[in-house]
Amino acid sequence: MKLSPSQTLHQIAALIGCKYVGAPDFQITGINEIHKVESGDLMFVDHPKYYDKALQSAATAILINKEVECPNGKVLIISDDPCRDYNFLTRHFSPWKMTEGNRGKDVRIGADCAIHASVVMGENICIGDRCIIHPGVVLYDNVNIGNDCIIHANAVLGSDAFYYKARPQGREKMHSCGSVEIGDRVEIGAACTIDKGVSGDTRIGAGTKIDNHVHVGHDTVIGENCLFAAQVGIAGCVVIEDDVILWGQVGVPSDLHIGKGAVVLGQSGLSKDVEGGKTYFGSPADEARQKFRELALVRKLPEVIQKLGL
Amino acid sequence: MKLSPSQTLHQIAALIGCKYVGAPDFQITGINEIHKVESGDLMFVDHPKYYDKALQSAATAILINKEVECPNGKVLIISDDPCRDYNFLTRHFSPWKMTEGNRGKDVRIGADCAIHASVVMGENICIGDRCIIHPGVVLYDNVNIGNDCIIHANAVLGSDAFYYKARPQGREKMHSCGSVEIGDRVEIGAACTIDKGVSGDTRIGAGTKIDNHVHVGHDTVIGENCLFAAQVGIAGCVVIEDDVILWGQVGVPSDLHIGKGAVVLGQSGLSKDVEGGKTYFGSPADEARQKFRELALVRKLPEVIQKLGL
Amino acid sequence: MKLSPSQTLHQIAALIGCKYVGAPDFQITGINEIHKVESGDLMFVDHPKYYDKALQSAATAILINKEVECPNGKVLIISDDPCRDYNFLTRHFSPWKMTEGNRGKDVRIGADCAIHASVVMGENICIGDRCIIHPGVVLYDNVNIGNDCIIHANAVLGSDAFYYKARPQGREKMHSCGSVEIGDRVEIGAACTIDKGVSGDTRIGAGTKIDNHVHVGHDTVIGENCLFAAQVGIAGCVVIEDDVILWGQVGVPSDLHIGKGAVVLGQSGLSKDVEGGKTYFGSPADEARQKFRELALVRKLPEVIQKLGL
Repeated sequence: MKLSPSQTLHQIAALIGCKYVGAPDFQITGINEIHKVESGDLMFVDHPKYYDKALQSAATAILINKEVECPNGKVLIISDDPCRDYNFLTRHFSPWKMTEGNRGKDVRIGADCAIHASVVMGENICIGDRCIIHPGVVLYDNVNIGNDCIIHANAVLGSDAFYYKARPQGREKMHSCGSVEIGDRVEIGAACTIDKGVSGDTRIGAGTKIDNHVHVGHDTVIGENCLFAAQVGIAGCVVIEDDVILWGQVGVPSDLHIGKGAVVLGQSGLSKDVEGGKTYFGSPADEARQKFRELALVRKLPEVIQKLGL
Repeated sequence: MKLSPSQTLHQIAALIGCKYVGAPDFQITGINEIHKVESGDLMFVDHPKYYDKALQSAATAILINKEVECPNGKVLIISDDPCRDYNFLTRHFSPWKMTEGNRGKDVRIGADCAIHASVVMGENICIGDRCIIHPGVVLYDNVNIGNDCIIHANAVLGSDAFYYKARPQGREKMHSCGSVEIGDRVEIGAACTIDKGVSGDTRIGAGTKIDNHVHVGHDTVIGENCLFAAQVGIAGCVVIEDDVILWGQVGVPSDLHIGKGAVVLGQSGLSKDVEGGKTYFGSPADEARQKFRELALVRKLPEVIQKLGL
Repeated sequence: MKLSPSQTLHQIAALIGCKYVGAPDFQITGINEIHKVESGDLMFVDHPKYYDKALQSAATAILINKEVECPNGKVLIISDDPCRDYNFLTRHFSPWKMTEGNRGKDVRIGADCAIHASVVMGENICIGDRCIIHPGVVLYDNVNIGNDCIIHANAVLGSDAFYYKARPQGREKMHSCGSVEIGDRVEIGAACTIDKGVSGDTRIGAGTKIDNHVHVGHDTVIGENCLFAAQVGIAGCVVIEDDVILWGQVGVPSDLHIGKGAVVLGQSGLSKDVEGGKTYFGSPADEARQKFRELALVRKLPEVIQKLGL
């Protein structure tokens, strides 16, 4: 999320009662997570394993639980619990409240749209021209939809990330204040769910077509002209390049990368990044031709066992 | 879809600017796809591989991209892009527009029904006697529901087929103008999605019971007294005979045929037609007893590998 | 379900026209199924295989299709079709009717809740303090939600059990008159479906977090602080202890028991009870380390086949 107006280091640190390293009037222009940060952003890190990655990231303000050396051109905010304080800041700058009725504040709708009266829209919604939004669709806050999109009945866009910090007293919900960005000519099936980013965006590229009951997790970025069949489940922070085809009921765990033009056959479950231009099958998935060869060999096991007298 | 009133060959050809072979006043009474056509119907074919099948089908008017010999009693319309022109015709004769409010035109509801006020119905809906339709259900245009049916909350019936023509500039949506036909005593679970046919029907036979989150694709025909557990996914153009049981999360790809009384165990994925009266398991599925034998043999692999010193 | 006021043996037997064994004024205080009964409850049994279990259960009134010896302190009702008569009784004491508008009778809502106007609630609903219920959520009758819960858009709580009695003329629907009980701090994802108990409760323990598109069947009991990722499917009458993690698209068939702290990896399908504290994978699932070892050995099959000259 971008801060508008931007805040000074001193202002941010004062909000969470932390000391800091850097010029008090250093400008912080956004808040984001490691995989999404750019210059001007504040990010948090609370595990030594990720200190270096955080300090060397594009983020210029680091909320951290150790007084490390401050990199050039950056600032530090020292917190005993960076995650808690990050969560406080996102809630502070992007507080949620239930929209009254079916249209929130700052809803802009383009020309020649057909949007059923039962569609519920939160705040900060932008819909392009010639879109069709069928009955029962729910758009949470911060959803942008391009031109010529079709959203089928009872789909949900912008629901919260499934993202918790484990605490001794239970799981603490991380506040979701990101957005959903849908490109032009995207079609989203009935009863699909597309979660918003935690503090960044969940993106679906132009021309991508998504069948019914598909789930897309927070901060996932999907390319152009992809095709996802019914009941595909894609976790959070996944990157899917252009022209990828996922057949029905495929599962993609978090943080994976799928290369351009990859095809994943029905019911497969990926367990690692996969290169583009190839076809995959199985759970866990391998290249399809290898997997089919294995399946053929498994059918020879009776012969093997017999020959060995086992 | 049936054309009412029927059209002449000349009228249809003029709409799409095509020349034709046959008597100008030859009657065209419907528009449908290859797997659904009957006498009087217009169908399209755009690949030489399917020319013979199309010309020998029950359809009496063929929209085709080559000047082939015209079979007896049939007519041809010659188009440089039969798919584009077919899509134009279905949109022309069955244009879609968003229904205002919660009840479209031509909605007929039988006696003693309980239909929640939040249920949204498009045009051309027929609901039998003693039906219960729970809150949040959305019925698109052209949905017929028999007697004594129960449709659970937030289910969607009649959503568009997931069906596109690949074009160099991206995927072109095929217009869905077919219907959904639900027999008597059918129960459909919460959040299910049943797509309409492209130009034919998606059918669910009498007495069939469907659990939550089940997806049924376009033009699929399901028999009587079937039982589908939660999260089953059935693609388009599938034929399922009577008394079939699909347990939870089973996947059925498009165009398959499942014989009467077949049982498919949970999470299985079919890859080919299966005979009735048998039990199947696995992804890809085989007969269950063979699959379970294979699984038992796989557990013997450590012995095999050890014995062979591999 | 509890009967309020309680009924006498004579009253109940008269309703279904059955003779009985026991004092006419014996008090029947509830109606429930075998896995849920307590003292004062009526249950039914219609198969000799389960007679002993039924007669020795905590239930004190047994609706049975044979004149067996009546255990001490219990009563019998003799019926030619106990299932039909049980179904009659639950419908009689807990008749269903469609709620008019968006709020049924006996809806109690705690302090500081944010509940969207589009949310539909049936009868006998109790919601704790500080709950958020997003647009399009449907609560059927008999749903209790604790404090600090979040229910995401288009989720459905309290839909009917997927439960039928097979009859020669088709499947007879068992009436669902149980409830859904949600503990404190539970979060339920968009488009989830949680079925009510048939005559008992479906329970989700405090602190449990559930992602989008998850299905929970009737009478299932889920512990505290569990985590279920998207598209998990849990059938009816399952028991899941505390701290269990089910990753995306996991399937759990009916009547299984999952021990405390078990972890089931994505797309796995359980086929039997599993102990707590361990990690499982596969369909059917085994302990993950064993399953991964098997998968590695399967990859050695080409060598095996070659060495054996098969």
